[in-house]
Formats: sequence, C-alpha cells, structure tokens
Amino acid sequence: MTQDDKTGGWIAVAGLGPGNEALVTPEVTATLAEATDVVGYIPYVARVAPRDGLVLHPSDNRVELDRAQFALDLAAQGRRVVIVSSGDPGVFAMASALFEALEARPDRQATDIRILPGITAMLAAAARAGAPLGHDFCAINLSDNLKPFAEVERRLRHAAQGGFAMAFYNPRSKSRPHQFTRVLEILREECEPDRLVLFARAVTRPDEAIACVALSEATPEMADMQTVVIVGNEATRRVGRWVYTPRSVLTPAVAG
Amino acid sequence: MTQDDKTGGWIAVAGLGPGNEALVTPEVTATLAEATDVVGYIPYVARVAPRDGLVLHPSDNRVELDRAQFALDLAAQGRRVVIVSSGDPGVFAMASALFEALEARPDRQATDIRILPGITAMLAAAARAGAPLGHDFCAINLSDNLKPFAEVERRLRHAAQGGFAMAFYNPRSKSRPHQFTRVLEILREECEPDRLVLFARAVTRPDEAIACVALSEATPEMADMQTVVIVGNEATRRVGRWVYTPRSVLTPAVAG
Repeated sequence: MTQDDKTGGWIAVAGLGPGNEALVTPEVTATLAEATDVVGYIPYVARVAPRDGLVLHPSDNRVELDRAQFALDLAAQGRRVVIVSSGDPGVFAMASALFEALEARPDRQATDIRILPGITAMLAAAARAGAPLGHDFCAINLSDNLKPFAEVERRLRHAAQGGFAMAFYNPRSKSRPHQFTRVLEILREECEPDRLVLFARAVTRPDEAIACVALSEATPEMADMQTVVIVGNEATRRVGRWVYTPRSVLTPAVAG
Repeated sequence: MTQDDKTGGWIAVAGLGPGNEALVTPEVTATLAEATDVVGYIPYVARVAPRDGLVLHPSDNRVELDRAQFALDLAAQGRRVVIVSSGDPGVFAMASALFEALEARPDRQATDIRILPGITAMLAAAARAGAPLGHDFCAINLSDNLKPFAEVERRLRHAAQGGFAMAFYNPRSKSRPHQFTRVLEILREECEPDRLVLFARAVTRPDEAIACVALSEATPEMADMQTVVIVGNEATRRVGRWVYTPRSVLTPAVAG
C-alpha cells in the first residue's frame, strides 16, 4: 500500500449532467454528500450546494491540468475530492485531464480514483428533439484549442462519408467565430442540402432553445459555446414535432 | 386539441442506465412512480419494482415496432406508459422505434411523448476503465439485423481512418459469431497492433468484467451481446490501472 492509500483521501470525477437537477444520478449526489472538497470550472461548482465541512474551489476555464494536479494534491492530504464536470466527465471533460496529470506524477498513481458518469449534452439534446442519434453516430469537439483545425476537417469528412450522424461539442466561441462557418461549408460539400441540423442550446435548463433546420438554412449564428449541434444522417427525418433517425439503413428516407 | 390529448395518456421512453440502480436518474424514477403501464424487453421490465396500479408488459426482443404500437394504443386509452430501455433510449434503443411507429400512424401524432435520457453503456464502460472516449469518438451498432454488414465495414474503415476512438454495441451474438471476427480483421488492417481494445461486460452489475488488451491480442470470444467494446484512438494509453485518451492530438503518444 502506498502513502496515498493510507490517507483515506480520494478523487471522484463526477458528471452533473446538462443542467436539470433531475438528471443528476443518485451516485453523484451520494458522492458529493461525502466530499470535503469540490473542484471545477466556476459555473459547475456553482451547481453544488454549499454546506458545513465542504470547501468549494471554483477555477477558470482552460486550467484543466492545474485543477487536476490540485485535486491529486488534496487527495494525498486525505481530502475527499469531487471534480465536477458538466454532462459526462469522460466526454471532452475533466476525466482525461486527470489521467494526464496522473501520468506526469508516478508518485500519485495509487490515488483512489472513481469516474462517475453523467448524462452528456448530446444525449440530453437528442432526447429533447426525438431520436436523431438513433443510429451510428460520432461525437466531435470542434474546438481547436487542443488540436489543429485540419484534424477537425478530416474527421468531419470521414464522419459524413461514413454515413454517421454527428454531434458537435464546443461548436463556436467568440475567439474563433469563423471556424463554425467553415464547418458548415464542409458539411455542404459532403451532405445533401436538406440534411437536418439541430441546434440545442442550454438543454434542460430554463432558457433551453432547440431549433431544427435544413443544412441549406443553417447559419453560424445559430450556435454558441452553450450549444450542442447534431447533424442527422441521410435518413434522419421529421415526424410531427420530432426529429429521428431510423434504426435501419434499409428503410428508404421519406420526407417528413 | 386531438382526441389523444384529451385522454390524459402519455408515453415516456426511459433509459434505465447500464444496470446499477444508483445510475437511474431521479427523472426516470419519478416518471415510473406516475406510470400505469411499463412496456419493454423482458430483462428491462424486470428491473421495475411491481406495485399496485402498475401493469408490467414484458415482451421479447426484436418486436420493437409492435411494442411501440402497443404503447401508442395504451396512451390513446388514457394510460400513462413508460417504455423502458437499458442505457439511453436514444442509443440503439426504443426511442427511434417509437418514432417509426408514430410515423406510420398519423392519427397518433398528437400523443404526449417524452424521451428521458439515461447513462448509456459506452459511457458507463468508459468511466469504469478511465477515459478512453476522452477525445472524438464514434458509436457503432455491429448488429446486422437492420443494416447490411457491408455498411458496418464501411463505417469501421471511416472511423479508423478519421482517427476516432470507437464504441461498439451488440458486438457479437450466437446467430452471427463470425462477424466480430471480421470486425477484428478490419481493425487490424486499419490500426497498429498495439491499439488498445477494451471489453466491458455487464458494466456496473455484480458480474462486471473489464479487460483491456492490445488489438493484436484481441479475440472474438472476448465479446458477447452483454459486452460493449471500446477501441481507443492511436494516442490512447495506459496510466496505472487506467486507460485514457488524451484531450490533445498534439501530445505524442507515450507507451504506458
């Protein structure tokens, strides 16, 4: 047993889901009740109710590795630490950052770690709209903070040519407004004009806004960093107010 | 307002998560408490506790459309119906089947429907193993019940060539044991031999079993219909007992 094991400290990386408290799993709620420290991006830490004996450590965006190292240090001191993520911690969130930090610190590798899944934004968005991810699909982070945009473009083309529906995280920010314009151009090169595109903003929160348009009508302004964008496959269609992707690729697409 | 609206009947398609009750959302639990009828595949209905006033309607596999039509008929009679799925209802599950049934019945299109997301198997499996889906990834249903296997092969090659991690649902069944053998062959053509492959069986249940091997060591017998298979991308690696995919494509892959 290592020194870390003896302290009784632990880290749980917990997904808080998309925003509605009714989508937080009992596992996450129970783990937060046992925590001494909560670490995370400011708006996610703000979702945790303060209580005696619980120290909240909100931090800014883009400091994921620093935050993970801080959590490892707290656990080594015997603290019970929850790192909170929105959605699911394993989807473009803090779980990978924690393992990156752990890789750099062999002396911390016996830390007691658990990853607690959550409802990720694309599946919450899909549920509100119908079942647009009802067949094979891809999840792509459109941010080029950590990868070159050429890699985004390569993945978009393979996803489209492979017949996948697609979900885009972080589609657009103030610092790179032109890139989502380029994403829509690439999609128009690869997909037919009536391909359905769903813009789901602030899903399950009071200011939720969901719009579904044909690719030919989609504009960059329809997305921001609070938005998940879902692009259907060629069979995705409307039925009443819903949008869904059939389970079968044998079923011919029917205009809704 | 249509006749359906007047009855007070509704349908909720609810995801029960991968198996552990601590992963069932409060939204799903509250909705089940209001239901008069629960419809679904036998083992999923078996997860709902019986109570007075609740009628359980378990049905066999591969009757998804019949089950959806039955739920629409019950709701039209004023019943409050929960269709239960394992995992998330929008991922290779009952939500798409319900909208297919709805498309065939214009007279039912005013039915009060909600889709309640759940923790899908690939994200529960990823959480137990670390963060193998921490970068762009695809979800692919390997069953050819509803699509030709040539389409599976096309998607596998695009996913691999696009640099995606991959999660496979329904990788193998007794009726088509040879296909997963072929999937591994395709992966070996497209990926390097030390690519990490995760076999996660019965995730979060008492008989959970998780194994991570190099692609060169993977064998078809490692998967069955209770297994989710996750294939990392070229940067996916081990750190201690964990497997994770770095957030950045700029970070060079390091042998774990």
